Amino acid sequence: MYNLTRVSPSGDTSVYSGNHPGELHLPAPFREAMREFECQLEESLHEQGDYLSESDKALYRKGKRVRPKLLLLFALLCHPQELSPSLSSKVIGGAVSLEMLHVATLIHDDIIDAAAVRRGHETIYARQGTEMAILIGDLQFVQAIRKFTQLIENAHDLQLVQQVLDTGMELCKGEIDELKVDPGVSDLLALESRYMRTIDRKTARLISVSCRAGAALVNGSRRACWYAGQFGQKIGLAFQIMDDLKDLIQDLETAGKKPGTDLARKRVTLPHIYALPEFGPDHILHRLLTDRGYEPSPKELEEARHAVLHSSGMVQAYSKARELVLDAVELLQLFPPGPYCSEIERMARSILE
Amino acid sequence: MYNLTRVSPSGDTSVYSGNHPGELHLPAPFREAMREFECQLEESLHEQGDYLSESDKALYRKGKRVRPKLLLLFALLCHPQELSPSLSSKVIGGAVSLEMLHVATLIHDDIIDAAAVRRGHETIYARQGTEMAILIGDLQFVQAIRKFTQLIENAHDLQLVQQVLDTGMELCKGEIDELKVDPGVSDLLALESRYMRTIDRKTARLISVSCRAGAALVNGSRRACWYAGQFGQKIGLAFQIMDDLKDLIQDLETAGKKPGTDLARKRVTLPHIYALPEFGPDHILHRLLTDRGYEPSPKELEEARHAVLHSSGMVQAYSKARELVLDAVELLQLFPPGPYCSEIERMARSILE
Repeated sequence: MYNLTRVSPSGDTSVYSGNHPGELHLPAPFREAMREFECQLEESLHEQGDYLSESDKALYRKGKRVRPKLLLLFALLCHPQELSPSLSSKVIGGAVSLEMLHVATLIHDDIIDAAAVRRGHETIYARQGTEMAILIGDLQFVQAIRKFTQLIENAHDLQLVQQVLDTGMELCKGEIDELKVDPGVSDLLALESRYMRTIDRKTARLISVSCRAGAALVNGSRRACWYAGQFGQKIGLAFQIMDDLKDLIQDLETAGKKPGTDLARKRVTLPHIYALPEFGPDHILHRLLTDRGYEPSPKELEEARHAVLHSSGMVQAYSKARELVLDAVELLQLFPPGPYCSEIERMARSILE
Repeated sequence: MYNLTRVSPSGDTSVYSGNHPGELHLPAPFREAMREFECQLEESLHEQGDYLSESDKALYRKGKRVRPKLLLLFALLCHPQELSPSLSSKVIGGAVSLEMLHVATLIHDDIIDAAAVRRGHETIYARQGTEMAILIGDLQFVQAIRKFTQLIENAHDLQLVQQVLDTGMELCKGEIDELKVDPGVSDLLALESRYMRTIDRKTARLISVSCRAGAALVNGSRRACWYAGQFGQKIGLAFQIMDDLKDLIQDLETAGKKPGTDLARKRVTLPHIYALPEFGPDHILHRLLTDRGYEPSPKELEEARHAVLHSSGMVQAYSKARELVLDAVELLQLFPPGPYCSEIERMARSILE
């Protein structure tokens, strides 16, 4: 999703996306922080010894590192440079914990979605079954929180850990909301606000807390922490809307999952909601999203996907994501300009690609 | 499992087993602490609002409260009485967190065991399916740790939370160990030590940390905390051995699950290990515990169960549990005698009933 064309890949020496050549244009403290992040993450995986296979670890090594990158960039942005140019090991540890928390949710998500591929690798669910995926997910969950709790040095840090745990709760609630039966599509506004609440919980809050944690772990001002959190929430929402749009257009080869998975699982996403008024109440899309007992054929699913794909729902949902990203970018004006701020802005805008 | 015959049930006014008439003989501060525990637990469930149905909450309300009772009893035992006769809300909160952590593991365990009944109620897995059970389990997990983190007032408390999280990790590892393929039964000693390590992780450590937390949350001495933990570990091991014995003898009516579930799932438990030498290498028991690919018929399973049931493995495993309980009771001599110590001893001995 990121624009990696700025720099030639000749300098790439790392296997991790965290040290991707696309970041060589960035200041040394950020690159150093990402290297330190990868080391601490490896250590944290190492502590799980025999309980994570090399294939399981590959899942960790292949991520886009959205949450840790944002945490480290906001930390560098709010960090008083005169003290030391590099971030403390505590800040790096925070980034590791949040990435692990994210991976823990992915492992359980893959069971719920019966997903075969994640980050280009066979999922733990597909390779080792539901039972093992539950337990390995639980292990990541505990390890993530355990690592975060080890960072606590003062009341400020403790408060942050509590915010992360609150986020964890909201995350679970968001996932449960998504599984629950939808109330029907009679009220489009109610459906939209329900959708926004769900994606806020299941995606935006963890991205928001990552940004806020970056500012908080370097003792940024209350104001800086708050704005970082607001920024994260807005791009988190945009991120999920774009993900839901891509579910309709992606191809099996690159995404590793069939297009229209959300429709097949009767998940009501923003493009579906915005597309609905264009079709009569007898249309397959209505039936699919209101009648939980209805078992559509593959042909009907494809018909519904095509209907959404060629409706104005796609453009409307994209506009919503764009609006959120632009709002987020505007919030960045409250931070000191420079390479970190530019990189955060680039990350925000790349969500729309 | 507890002996509740000492007191007539006439005084029972509560629906919770936590205030069972069997406890009316106990000192008022303990009964008060258990009442406070039930209130705080209800509050903590209430915070999960619509995400826990009345049936889900019933699971919480029906437990034997082994972990919170031990925590509160050790707290009362180590609590300087001259300060105040009742326990602080912090101590009660610790008991609530550990009970929630335990319930979280039960919810995920029920998926792994495909269990229909738990604590006399239909399991979340049976009622709402794997997906919802994963997420509701995750929610309990986060809520448990979140509650515990809210108690932190000083470095001492923080250390305790870290110990609880370490226990959480060991718990996951123990469950994973149990799922993994067994190395074969060639070496009985190796099998026994592997079994002890697994039950230590999956059962004993949480009971151990409950006892230690009771002492630690009232600022008990290092020595008191350590002995409380040792006591808990020993009775935790005995508790699991007895549970594995009961799996062979229980009947469907009272336990809500078929006898011999461990054998059907090819779990190697202590009575199986101790029974093995009595049967030749061609016996169904050997085949069942060494050949993972082997699919036994219900008749063969019943045959294997009967073989263990009438072997000396039952008595040997019981002796091991008894030895552990007696060791644990001996450790109690290091604590001041009185009603709390007696109740802890009664709980320990009741494991063998």
